[in-house]
Order: sequence, then structure tokens, then C-alpha cells
Amino acid sequence: PRDKQQTTTKGSSDFCVKNIKQAEFGRREIEIAEQEMTALISLRKRAQGEKPLAGAKIVGCTHITAQTGVLIETLCALGAQCRWSACNIYSTQNEVAAALAETGVAVFAWKGESEDDFWWCIDRSVNGDSWQPNMILDDGGDLTHWVYKKYPNVYKKIRGIVEESVTGVHRLYQLSKAGKLCVPAMNVNDSVTKQKFDNLYCCRESILDGLKRSTDVMFGGKQVVVCGYGEVGKGCCAALKALGAVVHVTEIDPICALQACMEGFRVVKLNEVIRQVDVVITCTGNKNVVMREHLDRMKNGCIVCNMGHSNTEIDVASLRTPELTWERIRSQVDHVIWPDGKRVVLLAEGRLLNLSCSTIPTFVLSITATTEALALIELYNAPEGRYKQDVYLLPKKMDEYVASLHLPSFDAHLTELTDDQAKYLGLNKNGPFKPNYYRY
Amino acid sequence: PRDKQQTTTKGSSDFCVKNIKQAEFGRREIEIAEQEMTALISLRKRAQGEKPLAGAKIVGCTHITAQTGVLIETLCALGAQCRWSACNIYSTQNEVAAALAETGVAVFAWKGESEDDFWWCIDRSVNGDSWQPNMILDDGGDLTHWVYKKYPNVYKKIRGIVEESVTGVHRLYQLSKAGKLCVPAMNVNDSVTKQKFDNLYCCRESILDGLKRSTDVMFGGKQVVVCGYGEVGKGCCAALKALGAVVHVTEIDPICALQACMEGFRVVKLNEVIRQVDVVITCTGNKNVVMREHLDRMKNGCIVCNMGHSNTEIDVASLRTPELTWERIRSQVDHVIWPDGKRVVLLAEGRLLNLSCSTIPTFVLSITATTEALALIELYNAPEGRYKQDVYLLPKKMDEYVASLHLPSFDAHLTELTDDQAKYLGLNKNGPFKPNYYRY
Amino acid sequence: PRDKQQTTTKGSSDFCVKNIKQAEFGRREIEIAEQEMTALISLRKRAQGEKPLAGAKIVGCTHITAQTGVLIETLCALGAQCRWSACNIYSTQNEVAAALAETGVAVFAWKGESEDDFWWCIDRSVNGDSWQPNMILDDGGDLTHWVYKKYPNVYKKIRGIVEESVTGVHRLYQLSKAGKLCVPAMNVNDSVTKQKFDNLYCCRESILDGLKRSTDVMFGGKQVVVCGYGEVGKGCCAALKALGAVVHVTEIDPICALQACMEGFRVVKLNEVIRQVDVVITCTGNKNVVMREHLDRMKNGCIVCNMGHSNTEIDVASLRTPELTWERIRSQVDHVIWPDGKRVVLLAEGRLLNLSCSTIPTFVLSITATTEALALIELYNAPEGRYKQDVYLLPKKMDEYVASLHLPSFDAHLTELTDDQAKYLGLNKNGPFKPNYYRY
Amino acid sequence: PRDKQQTTTKGSSDFCVKNIKQAEFGRREIEIAEQEMTALISLRKRAQGEKPLAGAKIVGCTHITAQTGVLIETLCALGAQCRWSACNIYSTQNEVAAALAETGVAVFAWKGESEDDFWWCIDRSVNGDSWQPNMILDDGGDLTHWVYKKYPNVYKKIRGIVEESVTGVHRLYQLSKAGKLCVPAMNVNDSVTKQKFDNLYCCRESILDGLKRSTDVMFGGKQVVVCGYGEVGKGCCAALKALGAVVHVTEIDPICALQACMEGFRVVKLNEVIRQVDVVITCTGNKNVVMREHLDRMKNGCIVCNMGHSNTEIDVASLRTPELTWERIRSQVDHVIWPDGKRVVLLAEGRLLNLSCSTIPTFVLSITATTEALALIELYNAPEGRYKQDVYLLPKKMDEYVASLHLPSFDAHLTELTDDQAKYLGLNKNGPFKPNYYRY
Ligand SMILES: NC(=O)c1ccc[n+]([C@@H]2O[C@H](COP(=O)([O-])OP(=O)(O)OC[C@H]3O[C@@H](n4cnc5c(N)ncnc54)[C@H](O)[C@@H]3O)[C@@H](O)[C@H]2O)c1
Ligand SMILES: NC(=O)c1ccc[n+]([C@@H]2O[C@H](COP(=O)([O-])OP(=O)(O)OC[C@H]3O[C@@H](n4cnc5c(N)ncnc54)[C@H](O)[C@@H]3O)[C@@H](O)[C@H]2O)c1
Ligand SMILES: NC(=O)c1ccc[n+]([C@@H]2O[C@H](COP(=O)([O-])OP(=O)(O)OC[C@H]3O[C@@H](n4cnc5c(N)ncnc54)[C@H](O)[C@@H]3O)[C@@H](O)[C@H]2O)c1
Ligand SMILES: NC(=O)c1ccc[n+]([C@@H]2O[C@H](COP(=O)([O-])OP(=O)(O)OC[C@H]3O[C@@H](n4cnc5c(N)ncnc54)[C@H](O)[C@@H]3O)[C@@H](O)[C@H]2O)c1
Repeated sequence: PRDKQQTTTKGSSDFCVKNIKQAEFGRREIEIAEQEMTALISLRKRAQGEKPLAGAKIVGCTHITAQTGVLIETLCALGAQCRWSACNIYSTQNEVAAALAETGVAVFAWKGESEDDFWWCIDRSVNGDSWQPNMILDDGGDLTHWVYKKYPNVYKKIRGIVEESVTGVHRLYQLSKAGKLCVPAMNVNDSVTKQKFDNLYCCRESILDGLKRSTDVMFGGKQVVVCGYGEVGKGCCAALKALGAVVHVTEIDPICALQACMEGFRVVKLNEVIRQVDVVITCTGNKNVVMREHLDRMKNGCIVCNMGHSNTEIDVASLRTPELTWERIRSQVDHVIWPDGKRVVLLAEGRLLNLSCSTIPTFVLSITATTEALALIELYNAPEGRYKQDVYLLPKKMDEYVASLHLPSFDAHLTELTDDQAKYLGLNKNGPFKPNYYRY
Repeated sequence: PRDKQQTTTKGSSDFCVKNIKQAEFGRREIEIAEQEMTALISLRKRAQGEKPLAGAKIVGCTHITAQTGVLIETLCALGAQCRWSACNIYSTQNEVAAALAETGVAVFAWKGESEDDFWWCIDRSVNGDSWQPNMILDDGGDLTHWVYKKYPNVYKKIRGIVEESVTGVHRLYQLSKAGKLCVPAMNVNDSVTKQKFDNLYCCRESILDGLKRSTDVMFGGKQVVVCGYGEVGKGCCAALKALGAVVHVTEIDPICALQACMEGFRVVKLNEVIRQVDVVITCTGNKNVVMREHLDRMKNGCIVCNMGHSNTEIDVASLRTPELTWERIRSQVDHVIWPDGKRVVLLAEGRLLNLSCSTIPTFVLSITATTEALALIELYNAPEGRYKQDVYLLPKKMDEYVASLHLPSFDAHLTELTDDQAKYLGLNKNGPFKPNYYRY
Repeated sequence: PRDKQQTTTKGSSDFCVKNIKQAEFGRREIEIAEQEMTALISLRKRAQGEKPLAGAKIVGCTHITAQTGVLIETLCALGAQCRWSACNIYSTQNEVAAALAETGVAVFAWKGESEDDFWWCIDRSVNGDSWQPNMILDDGGDLTHWVYKKYPNVYKKIRGIVEESVTGVHRLYQLSKAGKLCVPAMNVNDSVTKQKFDNLYCCRESILDGLKRSTDVMFGGKQVVVCGYGEVGKGCCAALKALGAVVHVTEIDPICALQACMEGFRVVKLNEVIRQVDVVITCTGNKNVVMREHLDRMKNGCIVCNMGHSNTEIDVASLRTPELTWERIRSQVDHVIWPDGKRVVLLAEGRLLNLSCSTIPTFVLSITATTEALALIELYNAPEGRYKQDVYLLPKKMDEYVASLHLPSFDAHLTELTDDQAKYLGLNKNGPFKPNYYRY
Repeated sequence: PRDKQQTTTKGSSDFCVKNIKQAEFGRREIEIAEQEMTALISLRKRAQGEKPLAGAKIVGCTHITAQTGVLIETLCALGAQCRWSACNIYSTQNEVAAALAETGVAVFAWKGESEDDFWWCIDRSVNGDSWQPNMILDDGGDLTHWVYKKYPNVYKKIRGIVEESVTGVHRLYQLSKAGKLCVPAMNVNDSVTKQKFDNLYCCRESILDGLKRSTDVMFGGKQVVVCGYGEVGKGCCAALKALGAVVHVTEIDPICALQACMEGFRVVKLNEVIRQVDVVITCTGNKNVVMREHLDRMKNGCIVCNMGHSNTEIDVASLRTPELTWERIRSQVDHVIWPDGKRVVLLAEGRLLNLSCSTIPTFVLSITATTEALALIELYNAPEGRYKQDVYLLPKKMDEYVASLHLPSFDAHLTELTDDQAKYLGLNKNGPFKPNYYRY
């Protein structure tokens, strides 16, 4: 696409996407996403008069999907100008990129970029005609790093960075430790709405979907072992138990193990059940949780998949040996065949099942996107001095605000504290309602 | 395909399929299905020595899928010769048909037959060279009717008919009433293993899948109304509640309504909740359950689908009027748009959601297929006089046998009655274990 | 009490209870029961004008509890005259008996009758001054038998017998087979509302209660084995799983076993898990399900109890041997102590846990009582010839009517069939809505 | 009892209990409790050789129950000397106090102490012959306050205070702020094992029990509103939904409200549902949540109870007016009767339902008791300087240790990190396994 001459219907060519003609189709995808992202829409409405992002020039680098589309267009509606690239070379929805470009967002992204394309796109998003970005929205830290390295002058004038990923947050903390973070940054990865909604419910919703779409397995009576009983594991276990599976759990942490016990899951070592289970699911964030020795002992037809940390949890490399035959059954489904004919069903080659084999509920993405929009508004409007050159967690009040924006979708009605009660509890009537260490 | 000259690798051309070259791919599909149809496989093993179907010439007319493939090959393994056609002009898996033909089954079927093709295929299955069928396996009654009408001499010499569908069973009872059924027939539609497994669990498994694949909807907190709380409704409600939906039920039968109450579902009239629900699901077997007046009152984005009786439950015809715009969003998903912009999301044009938008768990199909195989064996081997020219229910003992063949998949271990206990309960140690009216 | 002179405040002394002075307290118990027995109350209202039992002289023999009180007073309100005795020498609530006597019902019953008292009471209920009963309501068949034996002339003139227990029904069928049943009788034990509500929900509600009240056991993470997965077993398993227990099931019937599998319970032989479980519950209706050999292998602190057939399921007799020490811990709770110090916690000496250690929800009793009232009305008013001298099941329409009378408690709203739909389904708009063999 | 001369069988009279003769009965209660408190027993075993509390002189003031008995005797087994009083004038189990006294613990406590007795007992526990306490275990802070005020010299030499209650912790923080805490203190109230086990599971276990024992209510189909969806509310809602109730939630905090939505509970204002619900449960920790205006609008028979903050949540005082009649139905159950005859069923006069009407699972108490024992060991053995004159939270490692001591009850088997994995995650193989802000 870099060589292709393309123009929007309005005559602009400050963008680079696969095919601008797909804009209409992409528009429809964005409209569908809007229907479940009512929090962003209502944010548009509430903040429309005042345009809290007027003057903001946001350079962004995220997955480019219908949901991000809704976010970007919300930022624009709030007054911002945006230039965007993709944080992953595979994940761009070309039609959505086209639709965004068509409405005037300078998008540089397509599905299947080369490494070189990737950096070129980032660079083009930073370095536009008569454009000097003053805010960064990043997912993974590549954009931030690029600006830091290549455009030190731009970097110094940035008013705030918002980062959503574990990795990106990690890189920010390192910059900060090294004394090189000269901009306030907001870590949205560790907010409650992320941890207790994205990790838990997203996985509760998608584990069944991912397994069904790829294998058509029946859940009733199936024996499953879930490795790791953190938020992701809790979500997977709840869904599987609810549909009649017999679920076992492995854990290293006695507190999480005790929770699993109280919820009626047997806590075992993987070796104790590996011969009998029908499905193995990893959700530990750890590496080498399922090893070749476990795979060797699984029964014929056992399904193995990963909901946790990409790639590392299942030792897939150990299966790429001559004595084992791989057979691609469907997209994302391999049968690995042992010399005696035993087949193990490996999903998504051990990468994240729900990213590869199912969709993520838009509603969950809406929560994250709303958090990002609020973080941008907060950083952009904060009075001088509220935020220093450091990494901040979203203030609890804003976490609560994000939640409150999502309640109307459920037609949920909050109760208000009376003056009397607020005084009794020592709380402000508008929150925050809990101490910082509250666990939810 | 009728004009195309095709030959199996062994030189036979007594078949008619789309493309015999797809046999290998079809073989793999059959092998995958075999992995969840262990009951049939174990039936093959148990009955292999004695070949209980030796001499049986079975003419069959069913959906032709990988699962039916496993059934047909089981019948062959038990000694039968088989000729087969499809009971539905769309449902044939061409690769499976090819694989069956390749192994020597005379199959006449392809996806997308014309009405004329349909009857031609049936005819070819009945009327083969040096072949006189003595058993019929039918799904819908078309084959039976054809034999009855066109081959009265063949008809008279049939030893037994096995029929699986509601419609086919209905037609058999009519023949019987009219005194024209001169063959014993077995109704497998009303066996316990069908009603309490196929209807209930198949729907519990597939409702979530069907909704997710077509709409990516999140279940948590969604308001759903399920019309009809029979077996299908019970399955849908259980799954949806388990994943956090708020479920309402409509019913006409006070007993089913009381069951819904005791399980924690509000029993309402459709009108009371139609404005507030996010999803409407019909499972009544009735007609005109969701009418235009209900559709008019639904909120924007409401999803409407049917798990019950094909076509009739939702008044889809009423939506095909000029003032409403239809927009095809994806395969099987239409947005019907009201003049004010409101969209209703209609799935599968009101046909069965799980047939159109999800897969049916192989395990459930295995139960039905095993029942059919046993019914064929029973009728073929029954001593003269055990069955008259009438329609029979599967003996409870065989229902129990079907169940017992499926227990090993779950590694389930049955307890045996002691002599003492059997005497106390007045039961035979090998069953049947319950009176006929037992409800399970 | 037989010797004691007692008079109601209105001067009557045609009764025999423990202490007529307790009437006021008993009245309050009846009033509390009325609050959950709204179906009977509404039956009173609906049928009040016409007095469908005017002229009925009902002699009854049932447990005498607050709930029966509501039933008897309903029968009176509908026009009947009643005389009553107790079907069990222990179960009479003396205060309720007093309250009934005080309002003019001729009650002969107290807690702790001797065998001789028992028959004396029955006799007094049959044989009153200027009283000739024409209807019988029986629980167990003792009253029926007494009338049959001692008052053949009365027996012949009875218009109908209503019997609620398994045993009583069994005796009626025997009379019938012997050609000695010269009265139409109604078997209310096998109605749907009994089987699918009383057995299932009553046990789902009371198993937790019975265990908690007697042992204070925590359910979360407890390993439980439930013997028998019929209606009672299904209820117990559902409740225990819901509160976080790990539940295993034993079964002899492959169909019930397959149901257990599909619901996520491991189906095992008792011996496989007996060493590891914390609780053993029998619900088979069988005998010798838990034997001494099992008890010997249980772990220290294991709780053993019975929800099924009184007395026979656990071989309690085998525990009454010199080497084992019994220690009564609380009412209904014994520790049986092995020589090595191991303790097994035996509840209610192996009798029905929920009768001994918890209460039965009034609502469930209301369903049974309403069924009885309707059966009496039906038999009393049936036109000559509708019922012969045989045992009948309640017509499905009345089963449905009983259910419908209980829907208002849940504020449940039934949908009505349109004419069109009724025709399509071939149903009467007022029911019955299902064929007789429907399984619910 | 203060005047009564009593002696243990060994001749000691350094104690004051109701009746030393009840010791044997109390011993049995302690033994029963030991069976579910295996963590303490195993702590006794592990630490027995080294006697980590040798030399410790612990003065304690807690509820005196069988479970505390197990704790105190564990402390003794670990080498400590103990003197004890009760933190509540009503909660002492006299038999247990007797049993403790009999084995040589100097106990001063009985059920029904006067205010004066209360302080006398505390004083006697502090001020014994040749006894100078060096550790305090307190529940509520009264003992600590007494020592601080009356025995300043003792106070200064205390090595550590362990406090379990919200109130006591609050008082410690105040002392600390005022600069008057000259002893390190441990706050065990805010440990994970408390918040996520005691609050959540204890309530999940006891809400059903409390309601059943007091009202025999059936749960299936009941409409319930739970005020507050914190840990206690989550536990109540989970249990009620699991048994078929229809549950509504009220909340002030949008995050908790969103959680309730995702779990399938409707979030409403109390007024929206107050007319239709069958049960109202408060769990907010707030005051005046259920007001007279709500009570006025409840339907006849509505049950009202409190699982949250003692006394304040329901405005019980507003019901003590002349126009309303109170009727005591059973212990802990009052009917409050409106002029029109409407009855509201008030449980435990609005005090904590599960303390008044059910039992708390021993297992949950075991977790708290074990935490206290470990906190005492930690403070007593900590090297000089590890703890200053401040209030500390239990180190996460000890929280994890408490959990691990409870895993054997469930026969749960922890997985161990490999060296490789520990390195990858940057964790010590023995924990702590999570950052401090982890939410579980
Ligand atoms: N699939 C998705 O959509 C999705 C969503 C969010 C997070 N994630 C990823 O899932 C992983 C888990 O996230 P989380 O929020 O549940 O984290 P978490 O820390 O809450 O849970 C992980 C759990 O695994 C346990 N564990 C670690 N090593 C183990 C081992 N060897 N065996 C057994 N248990 C072990 C830990 O003790 C911990 O309790 C992370 O890598 C995260 O990035 C995936
Ligand atoms: N999707 C599938 O995979 C699948 C599987 C089996 C059966 N089915 C079909 O589903 C339908 C239902 O099957 P089932 O076994 O549950 O039957 P069922 O008879 O057990 O249940 C249907 C229920 O709908 C109720 N009902 C009828 N009309 C109603 C109305 N107007 N409003 C509300 N409730 C009404 C009936 O009282 C009944 O309880 C049938 O048409 C059957 O062929 C579908
Ligand atoms: N506790 C109560 O309140 C209550 C209520 C209703 C019925 N009951 C009693 O409970 C018993 C069961 O009633 P139900 O309605 O569930 O009957 P059911 O026939 O539906 O169920 C009993 C089950 O036990 C199985 N079984 C028989 N012998 C067995 C054995 N040796 N091992 C394992 N499983 C075995 C049977 O196959 C059957 O599935 C009856 O005795 C009934 O009278 C108790
Ligand atoms: N019964 C027991 O055994 C038991 C056990 C532990 C704690 N508690 C008590 O229960 C109470 C709650 O404890 P928790 O751990 O759940 O606390 P929590 O803070 O987790 O939950 C209380 C919830 O109530 C909500 N709330 C406050 N005021 C409200 C109002 N007016 N309307 C609706 N919701 C409101 C808060 O937002 C909060 O989410 C405390 O008082 C605690 O001491 C009781």
C-alpha cells in the first residue's frame, strides 16, 4: 500500500491503508461496534459542549479494529486531532482503517505489514505536515519509544502518555527509573475495571466460544484441567463448570488454591490428572506449564489450549520433532499425532485461544477504551503540577466513573448516599467509595 | 453430478456424488467424528463376531454427514449391505458422500439437489442391481413413502422400518391407522435418550455458540426472554443463566411455568418485557409466538432468534414490508431497520439457530445414531411374532443399553444391584430399571 | 388423653387431643402456614359460593400438622364435615390438633399415641354420633383398611377414596386386583406435581438445611457422594454443587447415570470414593446401599445420612456391635467410634434426614394438599359412571390446575394460546397441554 | 460465679467460670471443633519441637467458644502461658470455659456477665499471681485499653498486640496517631484470608441457614433484594441465586454495581422493588438502609434481616410505635403487624442474622484463629527492630502460609514453581506469589 496512490472522497491523501474503497464496509463495522460501546457515545454527548480535548493532538498506536475506531472518533468528537498507526502487524481490520481515513483521520496501517512498514507507519503518524503531537496513546510502548528516540523535541513537549499494556507499562517504569521519563504517564493496565472485568469476564465469555468454534466439543461431562486460578482462570472455570464440565485446577499460590477449593474445584498437580482429562487450558502467565512429558501422557483426542501468556505456557516447540506428525485440521486446529496413533488437538499453536479462535465481547473492550479516553482527558486538562514526570494509576474516582458510564447498558439504577449516610461512612457522596486497597 | 462419469479407485461406479476425488478429505471428517462416537465403535466391536446384520439389506435416507457416515459404516461392519440417499437437498456433506462411495456404499446424494434429483436419488437407492432391500432407515418418511408407492412388492418384504423424525413418525401412525402399514416400524423419536438428551443438552450446548458466532454478543447481564419452557427452553435457560444473563420465560402450561419459577426465572407475558429485553428466543414448537406487534416494540439492537419449530415461531413474513429495510450483515444475520432507525437483529431468518449458526455436538448425534443401529438390529433379529404390523417405541431396555454404551466416554462406573437388592426392588439385575411412565 | 375430660369453649367434647388449652398457640401456627398455602386459600375463595363439598362427610387419617390444618379447614369451608385421626403416632402437633378441635373438627390425635390409642383414634373418627362418612382421605391405607374390615356397610357407601402415599397406593392396587375395591380411588402419589416438585425441590431445599442444623458443616469444597440420581438425588446434587461441594454420584441405571455425567457429576462405585469423601447421602429407595464394609473404610469425621427410603438404605444395624461405641452428640446426631478412634457422624440414625433434622417447605406441602382437595372434589362431584371401582391417576388437567393455583405466589403470568395456535397444536385452549407420557 | 468457690480436679482455683463441673461436656465441644480446625492442630505438630511461644505470657480477651478453646490450647501447646477473659458479656460458652479452666488455663468468663463483672474478669486476667503478661490477643480493644490505662508498667513491657476486629484496629490506629502506641501491633482484620474467606464464604454458607432456621422459607422462586454488593453481599447473592431465588441488588458504588450486573443480578433502587420482594437483606455496613417508609410499603409476609453492620442498617426503632403490634413468633423472629393486618417478619431484631440464627462454619473461624496464632508467633519471635511501635498488616507470606495450612482439609495439592519458572516470574519459589495490590 505504500506505493499506491489513494484519495478519500474529500480529496485527502494523508493516510495509508490497504484500500480506501472499503470505507463503507468499515463504516458499518464501526456502527455495529457503537451499539455496544454506549459509554463512549454518552461520553461524546456529555463532553460535547465543552470539547475537553480541543487543541489536543493525539498520536496513537494501537490495534486498529472497529472498537478502536469508535474510540478514535470519540476523541475527535471531543475536539482532538488524531494520527494513528497499528501496534501489531497482523491485527488491523483494513476496512476500518479505510473508514477512519475516509472521515479524515490520518491512519497508517494495514493487515500484514512488514517490520519496515511497521516503523514507517509509526513514523508517518508522528511526523505529519504542520502537526506536532502533544498527547500519546500507546499499546506496547513502541510509539513512545520511537518518539523518545527520534523526535526528542516532540517528546519533551508531550503533555501526557496513556499506556494500556503490561509490556508498555513495564517500559514506562524503566524509563522512569532511568530518569528519562520527562512526561506524566498513565498506567491503565492495572485499574480495577481492567483487572476485574477484562481478565475475568472476557475470559468467562470467550473460553466456551473459542473451544466450540475450533473443535465443536460438547462441554457436558468433559474433564478439564485449568492451570492457574487467577482472574483468567476464575473466568474459565466458572464458565466450564456452569455448562457441566468437571473442572480441576492447578495452582502454585495457596491463597488462590484455597479459593478454588471453596468454589468446588479439586486442586491437583497436573500429573495426577493428565491421563484422564479431555481438555487442558493454561492461564498462568508463566512459562513451560504444559511440557512435552505432559503431552506424552495425554489421552487420545485431548484438547490443549492457552488463555494466558502468549506462546510460553505450552511447550509447543517440543512437539516439533520428527517422530510426531502434525496435521492441520482446520484453521487454528492442529492434530499432533504420536507414533502409536494418539492425537492431541492443539489450538492456535499455543497462542491465545480467544484472540485466535473467538471474538472478544465489544462491551469489555468498551470499558478499556473508555478508561483510555478518560485518562487522556485527565492528563490533557490537569492543572500544572497535578502530575509530575512519573507513572500514575487512574484515580479511583475515574475508575468509578468508567463503571458508571457502563451501567445504563444494563438499565441499572444506582442508589445515592444520603447526607447522613455519607457522613456516617466518612465518604464523599460522589465517591470514591472504597479505600485504595479494596479488593472487589 | 447425474451426468458425470465417476469411478472409485476400486472401479465401482454404482453411486452418484459431487466429486469422488474428495473422498480422502471426507474420510478425515469421518475419522474425527468417530472419536466422539465411541458407542458406535464399541457396538462394532461387541457385535463383530456374530455379525447381527448379516444378510440385512438396508436402504437409508437421512442427512449425509460425517456422523451418519460413522453410522452407515457401523451397519456395514455388523454385516449389512447399504444403499443410501439424502433426506434433505441442502445438508449433504459432499466429501463424506464421496468417502462412503469410495469404500463401497452406494450413495446417491449431493449438496444442492433439485426436487427431481431428490426423488431420482431415492429411487436409485431402492432400485439397485441384484438388490432387494429388506430394512428401511428413514428420516422424514419420504423413502418409506416412495417404496410404499412405487415398489409395493419390495415394501411387503421389508422386515422393519426405523424412523427418527417427528414428521416421519406421524406419517407412520397415519399409515397404521389406515391399515396400510404391513411392516413393523420403530419410532426412535420418542425415546428417553432422544427427549432428555438431544432436546435438552443439545440446546444447552448450542444456544450460546449460535448467538456468539452470529453476533458476538456478551451474555453477562443481558436480559433475555425465552418463549417456551419445555426441554429446549430448559436447555437454553440453563446455559444463559449460567453465564450471567437475566432470563425471563413465557409459557402457556402452568406446570412448566411452575418449574420455571422454582428455577428462578420470572414467568411473564411477552408484552410485559418486550421493550426491555436484549434477546428473544423462541422454543415452543408453536406458531406466531413473536408477532409483528412484538417486533415493533423491541428496543434498538434487540436480537431475535428461534430454537424451536422451523420457520413458524417468528412471524418473519410480517417483516418483509416496504417500510422496513433489510440489511444483510453477515451470513445468517440480518438487520431489519425501522423508519426511525431502530434495528432488530434477526438470525437465520427465523429458522433454527443451532442448525444454521452453530454445530450440533457429535456426542448427542451419537446417541441418536446408536439408537437407530440398535433398532435396526432388534427388528432384523426379532423372532417372528414379537413385532406386528404396528409402530413401536424402543423397548426401555434398549434405551438403557444405548445410555450404557455412552458411559465409557465419561469414564463413568455403574453400580450393580446385588441379588438381594434386585429382589427387594422387584427388578431384574440387568434392567429395565424404571417403570415406563418414569419421567427422568 | 383418652381419660381426660376436655371441652371446647363452645362446649363440645367430641374430640380427643392432648390439651385443648393449646388451641390458641396452634391457631397461630395454622395462620402462619396459611401464608404460604395461598393456593388452598384461593380455592376456598373460588369455590365458596357453590360449596362443592356440601354434604360431604370426610373421614381423614393423615399427619396432623399446621399444613394439614389448613387443608382440613379448607375442606370445611367448601362445605364438608370432617372427622380426623393421625396416620403416625409421633407426628401430631398437639397445638394444631387442639386448634382444630376448638373450631369444631372432631380430631382424635396426640403426639406419642400407643398402638392401641392409634386404632382407637381411627375408630372414633369413623364411628361418630349421627355420622356416616361418605369420603375417605388416607395416608398409608390404615384408615381405609379399618373401614373395609370393621365397617363393611360404611365402606360400601363411600363415594371415593383419596390416597397420597406409596404404601397406601400399593395397598389399593392390591385390593383392586383382589376384586375387593368397591369404591373409586384416586392415587395422588404419582401426579407430576408430586414427583417433579415434592421429590425434587423439597430435597433441593432441605438437604442443606438438614446437614447444617445437625452438623454445622461447611459445604464449600466438601467431597460428597450421593447414592442414587433419581428425583431426590437430583435435588440433593444440585443444591450441594451450587454451594461449592464436589459431588460424586452412584447409580445402577445407565440413563440416570448419563444424566449425572452431563450435569458434571462423576459417576463412580461407592468403593472408589468411600475413603476420601466427607459426606455420604443415600437417595435410592433401595436397601443396604451403605454397608458396614463401607462404613469401616470411611475417613474420620465422615457424615452419613439418608434422604431416601426410611431406615433401609444405610445398614445401621451393623453398627450396633460391641466393638463400636456410640456417642450421642446432639439430638439426631450420633458419633459412632471405631476402636482406633475414628468417628463416623450418623444422622437421624439413618432415618430420613429432612423429616428428622429440618423442616419441609410449606409451599411444597401446599401443592400436595391442594391436589388432595381437588381429588376429593372431583370424586365427590363426578357424575355417576365417570369413575368405576378402580384406582385412578389425577386427570392431567387437574394437575395443571393445581400448578396454576400456585403461580400467583410467584407473581407469574401465564400466556394464553390464541385460537389459531390452539388449532395449530391441536390443543384445547384450557389444556391439557401435554400428552400423558410427557416427561417435564 | 464471682462468689462461688470452685476447684478443678487438680486443685486449682485460679479461674472463674459458671460451673467447673461442665468441663467434660465442654471438652467434647472442643474436640468436635478440633476436627475442622486441622490447621491449628498441624501447627501444633509442626511447631511442637521448638515451642516457638516458650516464655510467652499471653493475656487474651475474645469470644470464648469451642473454636477459641482450640486456639488457646494451641498457644499453650506451643509453649505459652495464657490467662483469658471474654470480649462479650453474652457469647461465652460456659462449658468450654469450664473445660479450659480444668486443663489449667486461667479463664474468667461466663455467659451473662454484668458490666462490672466484665471489667473484673479482664482485670483478673491481667493481674494474676506471679504473672506478668508479655503478649496481648484482643478482640475489640477493651483489654488493650485496660492494660494501657491501669497497668502502664505492664503495657510498656508487652512485646506485641494482635487485634482482630474492625473496632479494635481503629482504636489502635488512634493510639498510634496520638503517639501512645508503644508496642508493635498486628492488624489481622484486613488480611486477604479474612476479607476474601470470612466475609464472602462465611456469608454464602450462613445466609440460607439463617433464613431457614428462623422462617422455614422456601428459596425457589423467591424474590429477594440484597442491599450492598460487597464481599458479604456477593456471598449472599451467590447462595440465593444458586437455590433458585430471583435476586435484585442495590448499590451506591458503580464498580460493585457493574459486577452485580455481569453476574446477572438486576441493580435497582430499593423503592423500585420493595413492593414485590419476599425477602430484604442488608449487607452495606451503612446505616438507615431500610427505613420505615420501605417497611411501610413491603408486602404481607415479607422477611427483613441484616447480614451487615449490627443494628444500624435497618431502622428498627421506627417500628417501635404504638400503631404497630409486635408479636414474638419464635426466638429471634418477630411479626410486626400493621393496622391493616399486614405482617412483616423481622429477624433477630435487625441484628446480625448469622450470629443470631445460625452457626458460623468452624472452618472459617479456623482461618482467623490460625492467622492470630501466626501473628503472635511472628511478633514474639521477631528480631529486635523488625517491628516498630506501629500497626502492621500480616506479611503476605504469612497470609499464604495460613492458606497453605488449610489446603490439606480439601486434599488439595499445590504445584511448585520450577527454578526456571520462578526466575521467569521474578518470584521466590516459596512466595510471596503476588504483589501487595493483587485483588484475588
Ligand atoms: N486470554 C485473554 O483474553 C486474557 C485476558 C487477560 C489476561 N490474559 C493473560 O492471562 C495470564 C493470566 O492473567 P491473570 O489476570 O489471570 O493473572 P493472575 O496473576 O491473576 O493469575 C495467574 C495465576 O497462575 C498461577 N500460576 C503461576 N504459575 C503457575 C504454574 N506453574 N502452575 C499453576 N499455576 C500457576 C498464579 O499463582 C496465579 O494465581 C496473563 O499472562 C495475562 O496477560 C489473557
Ligand atoms: N434447536 C434444536 O436443536 C431442537 C432440538 C429438539 C427439538 N427442537 C424443536 O423445539 C421445539 C420445542 O421442543 P421441546 O422438546 O422443548 O418441546 P416441549 O413440548 O417440551 O416444549 C415446548 C414448550 O412451549 C410451550 N408453548 C407452546 N406454545 C407457547 C406459546 N405460545 N408461548 C409460550 N410457550 C408456549 C409449551 O407449553 C411447551 O412447554 C419443537 O418444535 C422441537 O421440534 C429443536
Ligand atoms: N427425603 C424426602 O423428602 C423424600 C421425598 C420424596 C421421596 N423420598 C424417597 O426417596 C427415595 C428416592 O425417591 P426418588 O423419587 O428419587 O426415586 P427415583 O426412583 O427417582 O430415584 C432413585 C434412584 O436410585 C437408583 N438406585 C437404586 N438402587 C441403587 C443403588 N444400589 N445404588 C445406586 N443407585 C441406586 C435408581 O436407579 C434411581 O435412579 C424413595 O424411597 C422416596 O420414597 C424422599
Ligand atoms: N454477617 C457476617 O458474618 C459478616 C461477616 C463479615 C462482615 N460483616 C459486616 O458486613 C458489612 C459489609 O461487609 P463487606 O465486607 O461486604 O463490606 P464491603 O465494603 O465489601 O461491602 C459493602 C457494600 O455496601 C455498599 N453500600 C454502602 N451503602 C449502601 C447503601 N446505602 N445502599 C446500597 N449499598 C450500599 C458499598 O458500596 C459496598 O460495596 C460490614 O458491616 C461488616 O462488618 C458481616
